[in-house]
Amino acid sequence: MANKDYAQALATLLEEVRATRPLVHQITNYVSVNDCANVVLAIGGAPVMADETEEVAEMVALASALVLNIGTLNRRIIDTMLLAGRRANELGKPIILDPVGAGATRLRTDTARLLQRELKLAVIRGNASEVSALVGEVGTTRGVDASGVEANVEGVARRLAATSGAVVAVTGAIDVIATEEQLLKVANGHPMLTRITGTGCMATALVGAFCGVTDDYALAAAAGLTCLGLAGERAAAVHGGTGSFRAALIDAISLLSAADISDGARVYAG
Amino acid sequence: MANKDYAQALATLLEEVRATRPLVHQITNYVSVNDCANVVLAIGGAPVMADETEEVAEMVALASALVLNIGTLNRRIIDTMLLAGRRANELGKPIILDPVGAGATRLRTDTARLLQRELKLAVIRGNASEVSALVGEVGTTRGVDASGVEANVEGVARRLAATSGAVVAVTGAIDVIATEEQLLKVANGHPMLTRITGTGCMATALVGAFCGVTDDYALAAAAGLTCLGLAGERAAAVHGGTGSFRAALIDAISLLSAADISDGARVYAG
Amino acid sequence: MANKDYAQALATLLEEVRATRPLVHQITNYVSVNDCANVVLAIGGAPVMADETEEVAEMVALASALVLNIGTLNRRIIDTMLLAGRRANELGKPIILDPVGAGATRLRTDTARLLQRELKLAVIRGNASEVSALVGEVGTTRGVDASGVEANVEGVARRLAATSGAVVAVTGAIDVIATEEQLLKVANGHPMLTRITGTGCMATALVGAFCGVTDDYALAAAAGLTCLGLAGERAAAVHGGTGSFRAALIDAISLLSAADISDGARVYAG
Repeated sequence: MANKDYAQALATLLEEVRATRPLVHQITNYVSVNDCANVVLAIGGAPVMADETEEVAEMVALASALVLNIGTLNRRIIDTMLLAGRRANELGKPIILDPVGAGATRLRTDTARLLQRELKLAVIRGNASEVSALVGEVGTTRGVDASGVEANVEGVARRLAATSGAVVAVTGAIDVIATEEQLLKVANGHPMLTRITGTGCMATALVGAFCGVTDDYALAAAAGLTCLGLAGERAAAVHGGTGSFRAALIDAISLLSAADISDGARVYAG
Repeated sequence: MANKDYAQALATLLEEVRATRPLVHQITNYVSVNDCANVVLAIGGAPVMADETEEVAEMVALASALVLNIGTLNRRIIDTMLLAGRRANELGKPIILDPVGAGATRLRTDTARLLQRELKLAVIRGNASEVSALVGEVGTTRGVDASGVEANVEGVARRLAATSGAVVAVTGAIDVIATEEQLLKVANGHPMLTRITGTGCMATALVGAFCGVTDDYALAAAAGLTCLGLAGERAAAVHGGTGSFRAALIDAISLLSAADISDGARVYAG
Repeated sequence: MANKDYAQALATLLEEVRATRPLVHQITNYVSVNDCANVVLAIGGAPVMADETEEVAEMVALASALVLNIGTLNRRIIDTMLLAGRRANELGKPIILDPVGAGATRLRTDTARLLQRELKLAVIRGNASEVSALVGEVGTTRGVDASGVEANVEGVARRLAATSGAVVAVTGAIDVIATEEQLLKVANGHPMLTRITGTGCMATALVGAFCGVTDDYALAAAAGLTCLGLAGERAAAVHGGTGSFRAALIDAISLLSAADISDGARVYAG
């Protein structure tokens, strides 16, 4: 596709989300959970959070996509994620994994790998360090921050895509989206997105909403990252501190139109 | 009462909340918990969250009302809710139940029914689907969203009020508040309230604050829903996206005066 | 130090935080956790939340400071806090304790005392009631609110500092910071800070960021409380309701400059 065609395809996906309102089941961390619910509503989807083993199989059956985010992990939640994920796979619902902090602790690295091994994932969305940890590279994850390894991002993303079969979306100054066959890049975004908590989680939640309306998960990943990036650019133009940036970011997502995307998306084949 | 008298009675209740600052103990979900704390502060009450079995009996003894919200349920929390609820009943403190997502999964439906059966509730606040699930109607809860069944709301609300002995407050385009004997309606509100997460939970938290200052729980329910509805109208007038709507909503609650309510409340006997 | 010298020392500490970006590991409550992450980012640090026993020892090794906040306690978290705290002590990393609601329930009082007894704490940051509960005074904690006992704040703070060896920072209209030898007071702040949830937790998180860059924990405590107080003054000047105050508060923290502190800090030896 030409770049203009990508932008048009993403714009069409946004209209699809607004028209069909996909339900996105999220098993996620308690730090950014409210923002993750609000961005799914803002883009036009419907969020539901449920993390008890007794109910997740039923809930995922109602949903169009399942987001697994390991930002505040505990033993109970790991079991729940596996259970929900297996049911999602049985039902053919897309699973989006956010391996928050993989590489920082053994529990996070092991859990991210476990989920990747046991489940068929549609998309893995992380930063360079987290994605590197999943392919066994010695990254330097510092808390939940990206660092080091950025140079080799494309190679790592391609490798993880090949071994996992998932679309691998690595966010950074330029976002990289890899499948076994193709590479997409998204150049939208703004440094202010690194100054509030949970923007990575929000990106993943948005990707979840788009995976709820298409089988082209690479395009869905591009749509989620483009929407967050574009909204970040607009929110940064408000010129306040980080508190009003957060509100402005969700404002911008809720106000994004298909035309905004076809005009503003900077997506190209890599 | 004439409609003007209701508005006046609600205005007086607001002054009561501001004067006495009731402590509202909430055992609630981790998605909207911060907003639920902030709306209780905004209306003039004091929030406290505590969900460990070892401490809830003591905490509820300090509180003026107990809110039970099943939005992100797990086994531990169900036990805690029963324990806190029984203690509240012993002490004569009002319990307000928010059966989030009842009808969507068996765990939620069963838990909502269990709490209703085992505890004497002051108010049940839900949407049409959730309340229908409590009376055994086959609703179509989609995640935590209202849908279907709206037409029959009054009948369902009356039936649940009769069987439970609680005031039943069903939020929707027009809110319905039912007891065995009376029916109240609240016409305040705005569609923007459906575009951010947790406004149902916030409504319930506000009802909790008002139940902390009066034994007339139908009036307390009307007060909570009127305040949220009025604040929603004002926040919508700000004309931003959903991120600034959320801040504007809490602003409006914190700035509501008794005169705003006596002038703006649209409450009438059904 | 003269007062002007304190202000200058705090300004220098802010520059240090911005330059070195200390990682602050927080085991905290789910009510204010998002704000606690965002204020650490706003001041220039990096937050990470992790509360599973299997990973906290590893995570605290990556961090520059550990914050323990008992706002929504459960058995699992108490074990985690002890484990993380012991590892922090072994590694010489500062621990900052926020005994939210100590005095309100036995579990909270006992847990705060347990943590204080078992761990070497750098700073204890609470309100007058909470700190009184730690020294065994019969305070009247009403939920998580300060009340009573304010008069004797300095005496209580000094006593707890002497028995615990920690810096004791008591927030109120005038904040009191006590060590065995010295007493500091911070007169920055605004009553609006009491009208949103979690400002106490945010103060503690900020103190955590400053403890990550200096061994002078009394100065770090003064820096955290001064920054929150100054930001509260600026946010209150925005003149909205409590929803926009919250965003304006985080804005103001993110926009604070070293010059703002050297000009605006009202810190003096007691």
